[in-house]
Amino acid sequence: MPELRKDPIIGRWVIIATERGKRPTDFVQQEVEPPDPSKDPFAEGNEHMTPPEIFAFRDPRSMPNGPGWQVRVVPNKFPVLRIEGELDKEGHGLYDKMNGIGAHEVVIESPDPMRQLEHLPVEHIARVLETYKIRMTDLLRDQRFRYVLIFKNYGPAAGASFNHPHSQLIATPITPKRIKEKLVGAMQYYMLKERCIFADILRQELKEGVRLVYENAGFVALCPYASRFPFEIQVLPRRQSAYYRDIQHDEILLLADVLKVTLTKLGKALNQPQYNFIINAAPARYTHAGYWSTIDHDFRWHIDIMPRLTLIAGFEVGSGFYINPTAPEDAAKYLREIPV
Amino acid sequence: MPELRKDPIIGRWVIIATERGKRPTDFVQQEVEPPDPSKDPFAEGNEHMTPPEIFAFRDPRSMPNGPGWQVRVVPNKFPVLRIEGELDKEGHGLYDKMNGIGAHEVVIESPDPMRQLEHLPVEHIARVLETYKIRMTDLLRDQRFRYVLIFKNYGPAAGASFNHPHSQLIATPITPKRIKEKLVGAMQYYMLKERCIFADILRQELKEGVRLVYENAGFVALCPYASRFPFEIQVLPRRQSAYYRDIQHDEILLLADVLKVTLTKLGKALNQPQYNFIINAAPARYTHAGYWSTIDHDFRWHIDIMPRLTLIAGFEVGSGFYINPTAPEDAAKYLREIPV
Repeated sequence: MPELRKDPIIGRWVIIATERGKRPTDFVQQEVEPPDPSKDPFAEGNEHMTPPEIFAFRDPRSMPNGPGWQVRVVPNKFPVLRIEGELDKEGHGLYDKMNGIGAHEVVIESPDPMRQLEHLPVEHIARVLETYKIRMTDLLRDQRFRYVLIFKNYGPAAGASFNHPHSQLIATPITPKRIKEKLVGAMQYYMLKERCIFADILRQELKEGVRLVYENAGFVALCPYASRFPFEIQVLPRRQSAYYRDIQHDEILLLADVLKVTLTKLGKALNQPQYNFIINAAPARYTHAGYWSTIDHDFRWHIDIMPRLTLIAGFEVGSGFYINPTAPEDAAKYLREIPV
Repeated sequence: MPELRKDPIIGRWVIIATERGKRPTDFVQQEVEPPDPSKDPFAEGNEHMTPPEIFAFRDPRSMPNGPGWQVRVVPNKFPVLRIEGELDKEGHGLYDKMNGIGAHEVVIESPDPMRQLEHLPVEHIARVLETYKIRMTDLLRDQRFRYVLIFKNYGPAAGASFNHPHSQLIATPITPKRIKEKLVGAMQYYMLKERCIFADILRQELKEGVRLVYENAGFVALCPYASRFPFEIQVLPRRQSAYYRDIQHDEILLLADVLKVTLTKLGKALNQPQYNFIINAAPARYTHAGYWSTIDHDFRWHIDIMPRLTLIAGFEVGSGFYINPTAPEDAAKYLREIPV
């Protein structure tokens, strides 16, 4: 008998196949081809092929926009939003619009086109995560921006147009819908229970253990109870904090460890699947509004990792109704048992 | 300058490329292969290859589960929900679940594997739409069901596993998330304005004209102001009605005409694109609860048609943040100008 399960934060019901669920070998993977180094704008030596860099971790004696970097941030050559201009919010009859103001940056995770994020040393991954924090903090100084979306598309099916390992930042003047739903859901739970829903989820998951993938002193990786996708993973910090930009240095190293282990397990279990990850955090200035005054207690930033194993049909996007052929308990068990 | 536009019903912001937007010829279409007639379980003569039929429009002298039908409804051989059993709603710590009770039926739109829905005569399309109404009404007699999702996946990229033209019905004990959001959005608008938001949208769209695709005496097809996808189309009835199952016979013929013209235009403009459509309607028993007592005034059923021209990346599903490379005004203009 399949099961209907409700996401405890946003209230979405999902159908979970609990019998004869799909196993890792049932999913056919499309291999991601490595880029041609001579044409790869993100490779070392090709720095002139990107717009001038915004930030980089680089050797002390190296020069900006030349070789010698470990992590490099450049503006997206084809930004979906533009940095110059005023917001100009206006109505149009019953509709609302504003100028497409924002920032769109690319975080090149390493000079090596062949090494995926999880194959880099923990210290290097930590530098990528530190870069997210630095760029996010800087972009949120701009009073026009309300949110900075940080995400990674790995592989063409996941939406990546370049296969050189990279992630993206989009600063927007609005809060994305899913973030808003999570904020509202967490606040409503807090109003009812006077407890953080993420803390309650962690407590239950650590006690039950069946959906756990990996944990260390700072973070827990688990397959969510109402996962939409097979092998979906959520990474939750143990410390209460609504803002990714408040992450501490020791936590960054622990997060790097969780990502390295979790993505390596995913890669081994599913033959290097294409995937997306997204950092979910409280937006810029919600702390300043009275209505959101419990945010430091009710919301916790987290990462969603979504392997692209099944087609996302328009039907599912249109109805918000998802069918997951692999129970999260089965997915977590496979992943736990993979040695790293 | 790209534009940020807000969906007036559910509040989702979308980035719309207003300059040098993608034109129909920019989208590469994957051709949908016609099924092999001998192996096609939905072809006339192969009725024994499906479970016994639930309903059919057929010649008066023909026998059930034999040839002689125009539209045929059968249970899905691989249902995502099961018809037998009790709901058994229960908590599991902080989580909520219930048995996967429901119904999953296939509407075979015609015996001809080669003729797409829009290539059938209007009277035949009307019979398909009448079938939706008949099956929906019947399924909602079951007190366990709250909603009947009616949708069509055309082509493998849209999630179809058979290419013989068909649509699907899924009866569920829950209301899908997107429907709930639309119901809440429409109710909040009504509380504020004491007007139906769908009526207001129709009024503004008919006055402006720039996003109109086609209209007749009963229905208006338009590209929504905050379309998530290129060439997305919404079909709205002129008559106020929250429930698809209340559609009248003359309206069914007019709806068949709108679907025929609109889908033919889409097919010509975009070289038979793969697509999904979904009927959005008020759920089963919302009229009986006091809280929803304005539903007959605040909500209107409608159809969303979503061509699959761009990849739906996990990032977009995860964040709820969509980037549409074709302005709805451009899409509507192309579609209006295509002769049918």
